[in-house]
Amino acid sequence: MIKEGDTVQLKDRKNSFFIKLKKGEIFGTHKGNIYHDQIIGKEFGDTVKTHKGNEFLILKPTLYEIIMFGIKRQTQIIYPKDSAYITLKLGITDGMRVLESGIGSGALTIVMANAVKPSGKIYGYEKEEKYIDTVKENLRLAGMEDYVSLFHHDLSEKLPEDYFDAAFIDVREPWLYMENVKSALKRGSPIGFLLPTTNQVSRILESLSYHGFIQPEVKEILLRNYKPVPDRLRPEDRMVAHTGYLIFARKG
Amino acid sequence: MIKEGDTVQLKDRKNSFFIKLKKGEIFGTHKGNIYHDQIIGKEFGDTVKTHKGNEFLILKPTLYEIIMFGIKRQTQIIYPKDSAYITLKLGITDGMRVLESGIGSGALTIVMANAVKPSGKIYGYEKEEKYIDTVKENLRLAGMEDYVSLFHHDLSEKLPEDYFDAAFIDVREPWLYMENVKSALKRGSPIGFLLPTTNQVSRILESLSYHGFIQPEVKEILLRNYKPVPDRLRPEDRMVAHTGYLIFARKG
Amino acid sequence: MIKEGDTVQLKDRKNSFFIKLKKGEIFGTHKGNIYHDQIIGKEFGDTVKTHKGNEFLILKPTLYEIIMFGIKRQTQIIYPKDSAYITLKLGITDGMRVLESGIGSGALTIVMANAVKPSGKIYGYEKEEKYIDTVKENLRLAGMEDYVSLFHHDLSEKLPEDYFDAAFIDVREPWLYMENVKSALKRGSPIGFLLPTTNQVSRILESLSYHGFIQPEVKEILLRNYKPVPDRLRPEDRMVAHTGYLIFARKG
Amino acid sequence: MIKEGDTVQLKDRKNSFFIKLKKGEIFGTHKGNIYHDQIIGKEFGDTVKTHKGNEFLILKPTLYEIIMFGIKRQTQIIYPKDSAYITLKLGITDGMRVLESGIGSGALTIVMANAVKPSGKIYGYEKEEKYIDTVKENLRLAGMEDYVSLFHHDLSEKLPEDYFDAAFIDVREPWLYMENVKSALKRGSPIGFLLPTTNQVSRILESLSYHGFIQPEVKEILLRNYKPVPDRLRPEDRMVAHTGYLIFARKG
Repeated sequence: MIKEGDTVQLKDRKNSFFIKLKKGEIFGTHKGNIYHDQIIGKEFGDTVKTHKGNEFLILKPTLYEIIMFGIKRQTQIIYPKDSAYITLKLGITDGMRVLESGIGSGALTIVMANAVKPSGKIYGYEKEEKYIDTVKENLRLAGMEDYVSLFHHDLSEKLPEDYFDAAFIDVREPWLYMENVKSALKRGSPIGFLLPTTNQVSRILESLSYHGFIQPEVKEILLRNYKPVPDRLRPEDRMVAHTGYLIFARKG
Repeated sequence: MIKEGDTVQLKDRKNSFFIKLKKGEIFGTHKGNIYHDQIIGKEFGDTVKTHKGNEFLILKPTLYEIIMFGIKRQTQIIYPKDSAYITLKLGITDGMRVLESGIGSGALTIVMANAVKPSGKIYGYEKEEKYIDTVKENLRLAGMEDYVSLFHHDLSEKLPEDYFDAAFIDVREPWLYMENVKSALKRGSPIGFLLPTTNQVSRILESLSYHGFIQPEVKEILLRNYKPVPDRLRPEDRMVAHTGYLIFARKG
Repeated sequence: MIKEGDTVQLKDRKNSFFIKLKKGEIFGTHKGNIYHDQIIGKEFGDTVKTHKGNEFLILKPTLYEIIMFGIKRQTQIIYPKDSAYITLKLGITDGMRVLESGIGSGALTIVMANAVKPSGKIYGYEKEEKYIDTVKENLRLAGMEDYVSLFHHDLSEKLPEDYFDAAFIDVREPWLYMENVKSALKRGSPIGFLLPTTNQVSRILESLSYHGFIQPEVKEILLRNYKPVPDRLRPEDRMVAHTGYLIFARKG
Repeated sequence: MIKEGDTVQLKDRKNSFFIKLKKGEIFGTHKGNIYHDQIIGKEFGDTVKTHKGNEFLILKPTLYEIIMFGIKRQTQIIYPKDSAYITLKLGITDGMRVLESGIGSGALTIVMANAVKPSGKIYGYEKEEKYIDTVKENLRLAGMEDYVSLFHHDLSEKLPEDYFDAAFIDVREPWLYMENVKSALKRGSPIGFLLPTTNQVSRILESLSYHGFIQPEVKEILLRNYKPVPDRLRPEDRMVAHTGYLIFARKG
């Protein structure tokens, strides 16, 4: 049974809306309004009608769908092909304290929060204050707000020492903050970066070596979609060719 | 502080061992024996000596490392590039009941178990009884044994109806079991498959369509490693070119 | 010195035209007219003005540019990444007689014609008569018209026996014509196909085996472009993910 | 009919030899000797026996096979996926004068020579004298010796001015020679480079810009092989992930 606090997907032929249910609230669309209370108590797979009589299917969205289609994008997001791999490569699991900066739209934050549940936490540092409110809204939509603490400053401010079990840094010049980040990480902890250009990769590798990080790795993940037609199976004509290089290392 | 039940990585120049600590036990290597009790109470980053005086570094392994280097492989495993993506694409999260078959060495099982923690569970069906014991050992090593139930039969036996929130099927002829799998899934639930040949992909797409599954997708993930040398950055000479095609759909 | 019969590229800031020079002719653009005779006798790198006074740079186009930007496209062309490889894989060289069908816009024909020069010939079979005139024009633009014979029928008509040194077949159902094509090829001769779907690949492999062709190979070529910025080097965001699978074999 | 000067492939179950026929010569194998005169006058597809009675099939090799399996490799060769594309991208065609340096084993030289035939020429500069003899032998095997002039010095020696229609440079530090190479190229001529690391790519892009070259492009070609089994079609497990980045530009 669908209850208050659940995130549901409302879908008709053309539209797909993701909303978090709260008693008494109204969700307005160009097809008419829906009271959240109309949805609470129903089952996934049921339908609901707007006050204008237009019908929507109520679906349970996956975390993947919330990230790809539900959250507000205020920046280029880290795509699931990368965020899923990053989370596993960093070994994010229940109980860990994870440093993340910047946060962007929170797409990676949501995936990592899902992995630290229930006793761990993501500590997100974002210098752009304007992003913070949207991230909070996105985290609520994904049901991850309890597992993330947000701070609106960047990595140049002093971090707690010897505190984090892992870190992921997605800023343009991560080498500027390596001393600070290093002291904030526990010994042996994994760290990751996403950087779009080869020049940045070379520079962070130099910085990691200079600061005594070990086991550097550089990886790139390519996702190829196929047309799902049984008797005419073939790759899509075009694909995303580059999101960024992933760099991983460990505090020595 | 390292405690009983933790999984640690013991590392010297040439070797890397992953062990789950239990009071009173002895871990034997060709470099000599180590009592688990020697390790319990130390900190990650400390060292321990065998009775022959050979020293090992004690590290905290990531889930990624346990999967790639720690578990016993009795089959081709599902690699992190795929298992991480599958888990996110299926929307695996806390509290879900997930059907998996076959289990193989449990590499994907571990990743999905990490995502359903603490209140969900993976239900693993594996027809090869000989695999089951190793999977159990692998799950214990990863600390995931509480979140997985194993059954040694295949998908031809009747499954509980309308029970699972998601399913991942990695068997050679998944189309043989689609009726059973479908009835076991809740309405709208996501399902995934890994299949190595294009012929199998065509066949499962046909079967999915026949059984009323919706939103079919076919994807392939490629991982490219780079040599992490700042002033001579370049891709590795060779790469894994194929593990399998990933197919996703939803119960309609 | 530029002479009659040469193909030149006329370029200004926004436009790029490819024309084959003929005494007495006029080339009309929206920027004004240019007499071919104005260009004949000049050097590549010189400029020419239209009667309205607009200036164009005269460049010598490469075969690559003629194919990519000069020829008229009436179909999806075979791109240089594929056509160059096909030509080398089939071993196309001076003096060979090469069977090609269909011809499409002649993009591959031009590349193969360049390789059989001066004593060989491409024999192009195209069932769509409407395509033939454009192909002729494209061949003239590329200066390859003397090395290609065009026929407006498809492969169902009887071909000369034991006649061709190589063949490339780019039609939707090549298996329909294998008996005919086989008898037209000399013993041991290489043959190639371009097919977009995996189902077609499986089918032609079966047909090749059935007809006694040997050494089957299936290949796919991916071209990745980078942004050519020295201090921000990175792959383009998007790429062509699929043109077709290339299949090669030899008459046994 | 096979004649003196032809290159033939001798093939049995396990071996494959490429030889250029010359009257009176003997080809020795561990299976026994074959007189070239035994082969001259036969047809491709016929067989020949060694003096020990072992039989070989006589095949006509493609240029692709000569490059991949016939020539002696004294260096990493430029593979067909790259050499074919380079040749087309540079617009190599009959009558052109092409500068190449270094030559390595001559794999690209052969492909470009095939394209400049019959009236053009490749001018190959190679600083390693020890390579020159093998390249000559390789060119003879491919039947391309008449279309290539070899020089055993590198690009630091003065080149003829305003002489070449195209250039391909495959040396470790091409930026050292750009002034010289530029003056040797005709205005507007295309130039290409193969470089394995991203750092080299950045450096040559800077150098090209500094020397007034225009239209820089950076490309990478990936070749994926499939197992040619009709009912179990799938990519090979492993592939060559990197040979080098291709850089192209034009003299401005």
